[in-house]
Amino acid sequence: MTQLIKARQGIITPEVERLAKVEGLTSDELCAKVASGRVVIMKNKQHKNCIAIAVGEGLRTKVNANIGTSPDCVDFADELHKINVAVAAGADTIMELSIGGDVDAFHHQVLEKFTLPIGSVPSYQGGMESIAKHGSVVGMKADDMFEMIERQAKRGIDFMAIHAALNMSIIERLKNQGRITDIVSRGGAFLTGWMFHNEQENPLYAQFDRVLEICKRYDVTLSIGDAIRPGCIEDSLDRAQVQGLIVAGELVQRALEAGVQVMVEGPGHVPLDQIPATILLQKQLCHHVPYYILGNLVTDIAAGYDHIAGAIGATTAAISGADFICYVTPAEHLRLPTAEDVHAGVIATRIATHAADIVTGVKGAREWDLAMAHARKALDWEKQIELSIDPPTARRIRGERNEEGAEACSMCGGFCAMKLVGEHLGKTGGSC
Amino acid sequence: MTQLIKARQGIITPEVERLAKVEGLTSDELCAKVASGRVVIMKNKQHKNCIAIAVGEGLRTKVNANIGTSPDCVDFADELHKINVAVAAGADTIMELSIGGDVDAFHHQVLEKFTLPIGSVPSYQGGMESIAKHGSVVGMKADDMFEMIERQAKRGIDFMAIHAALNMSIIERLKNQGRITDIVSRGGAFLTGWMFHNEQENPLYAQFDRVLEICKRYDVTLSIGDAIRPGCIEDSLDRAQVQGLIVAGELVQRALEAGVQVMVEGPGHVPLDQIPATILLQKQLCHHVPYYILGNLVTDIAAGYDHIAGAIGATTAAISGADFICYVTPAEHLRLPTAEDVHAGVIATRIATHAADIVTGVKGAREWDLAMAHARKALDWEKQIELSIDPPTARRIRGERNEEGAEACSMCGGFCAMKLVGEHLGKTGGSC
Repeated sequence: MTQLIKARQGIITPEVERLAKVEGLTSDELCAKVASGRVVIMKNKQHKNCIAIAVGEGLRTKVNANIGTSPDCVDFADELHKINVAVAAGADTIMELSIGGDVDAFHHQVLEKFTLPIGSVPSYQGGMESIAKHGSVVGMKADDMFEMIERQAKRGIDFMAIHAALNMSIIERLKNQGRITDIVSRGGAFLTGWMFHNEQENPLYAQFDRVLEICKRYDVTLSIGDAIRPGCIEDSLDRAQVQGLIVAGELVQRALEAGVQVMVEGPGHVPLDQIPATILLQKQLCHHVPYYILGNLVTDIAAGYDHIAGAIGATTAAISGADFICYVTPAEHLRLPTAEDVHAGVIATRIATHAADIVTGVKGAREWDLAMAHARKALDWEKQIELSIDPPTARRIRGERNEEGAEACSMCGGFCAMKLVGEHLGKTGGSC
Repeated sequence: MTQLIKARQGIITPEVERLAKVEGLTSDELCAKVASGRVVIMKNKQHKNCIAIAVGEGLRTKVNANIGTSPDCVDFADELHKINVAVAAGADTIMELSIGGDVDAFHHQVLEKFTLPIGSVPSYQGGMESIAKHGSVVGMKADDMFEMIERQAKRGIDFMAIHAALNMSIIERLKNQGRITDIVSRGGAFLTGWMFHNEQENPLYAQFDRVLEICKRYDVTLSIGDAIRPGCIEDSLDRAQVQGLIVAGELVQRALEAGVQVMVEGPGHVPLDQIPATILLQKQLCHHVPYYILGNLVTDIAAGYDHIAGAIGATTAAISGADFICYVTPAEHLRLPTAEDVHAGVIATRIATHAADIVTGVKGAREWDLAMAHARKALDWEKQIELSIDPPTARRIRGERNEEGAEACSMCGGFCAMKLVGEHLGKTGGSC
């Protein structure tokens, strides 16, 4: 039985009991949210050492970090290092997206080594094997797709992006409509190529029940991949995207009926004013299951700084109801991220999700800022550093130009506003 | 005559004529905006080599970079270097905020060397001189304050933050109300200390006409300093802040009546959901003159990454009507920024203002993203780098892991979605 089915039966699982405490709810409240499909509990039954997390409505907004090799850069030790960096920076989940090297062995290593939920896109490894066997992605057999999903589910992958909400009708609409960037989802592109080449419907759509059957067996959280997401600001909320979302909603309904935990993946490139509508539409069309978005990137021109463009969009998105944010790193659109990029991406995304959690009233969010404000007023630098989003970085920056133990900082020195006013209002000073 | 007075008389100045073209308006349209006070043209008559800029409603959102020494770090060569870095990164204006060393000489040097508008806070240099002469900031004479404003206006400072919207009544209200961070504005703190010590009303408020007279003579754009801005999320939109804004509005009215170009400085720390109301309130209470904000910082806990917290807030603020954004650097709350911090701060803020300009329909904004989207689809890497917000950084990042001239990038290699789909939809590929 999946967490969803158990919740519907009113069974408080150990995971629900623990996670309710973590999120500041009662077990009954969290159980009801899981039963409604508005919250998923991510943990594959086979990922024995996994410490489950809850994602969805009213909970702390979660952050995912993508790692993985590319055909040109296969260095699994470096990818392991990136996971360690992401975890240290506060990522809630990791998506392992390798498309080069021995992925089977690497997945086993990652699942054994890490206790946070691990996600994947099975069609990536499927694509690699197809190239090895048939010389191309499009040579893949439909059965191979399901075999790969089964293989990854069995080994313990906790959540999977499956590009099932893509079919001939959507692609036809896309072609008729025209679009600047066509398809920018890697999984979506594989399948589109496959469908054109084989002149067949997308097997993941046509045989969606096979996907559900596997996810149900292992309690894999199904993430309906956003195959048709826009790749630039100009394409945002076009008919193809909305059509994809309608189909995603239909699949969500079937997943819920089957007792499969499900969420929906979203864009991508969205101008800021379109973010609330984008999130609302997903929630309405997809039974309010969790929305897992990439960014949102609020401009196309920030290559080199897309973690910032992503953080801007993620804040408004999370306030609007997005539940789970895939980070964007400074390397997005340019190259595979380094460990340094991974760190920058996780921290930027956590700033965004926290800024949103303050607004939506997530328990503990505002209290964190309040503690920082008091530490500033008290000129308690050690406390300020401890409370900052990334203490080692705050400590390094402050240390570069400040005497150890100095009361004010080098920005104002003796001109510190908090000190000046504190002397007159009869309180201790602080930092601006 | 100031630009405001000339505009009221229907005179199209050379600055209005040139800036209308820059902003994509007709000269008459821009002239009408200047006449209404909703746009200011920044340029002191004495800053001969200054290339004026326009700030306000419907125009491209502008970015300011603060530089300046502190008592503990006096290195004017380094501050000059920071200005060069800020200009190269695309800052529209510089505020020179030194509180250490020979500020007179440095101001002359900066005004001679740079053609963009230069701002200041005269009470900083005033405070320094008071410490030298009287041993403390609070020993300053009221006349000294006006002498300093006059001295800086005469030398050509284009815009000045004057903390006139602070009086005994506001401070009394602040005390009665209670506030976590009291006063975090450096200028506001000077004056509060001065008022307590001297048991006198704020001279800049009590003798505001003297401020106006000086600003009018040199066509200095007056920035009503946000002396009472909150220093943390929890204090946002408290009664003291709103009281300060009401008084600012009263001063704006007097400035407009006197023919002085005026804008209002704003926060600071604001949770994201309070940003639209904060901007709207300023616009309504202050005759819709330009709003010049610091950030907004949407969380207090991002020390070390406050440029990101600031960029998040700045985007929503600019969409909500903020016209002019003072950058925040990664060093905020920790120490004086380095040149590297200045660069990071300007770029992050420009990403934010551009993302907002896309939404508000500023001419050329959406077109920039569109050009990037086409370059991505065409896999034209040179063009993508040229079009990115900071080409040298984009080039460096891409170069680190990509072969020169390679079509795809190392993120996907041969698995590039744009390539895969392009082959089937009969177009050239692109980058995800």
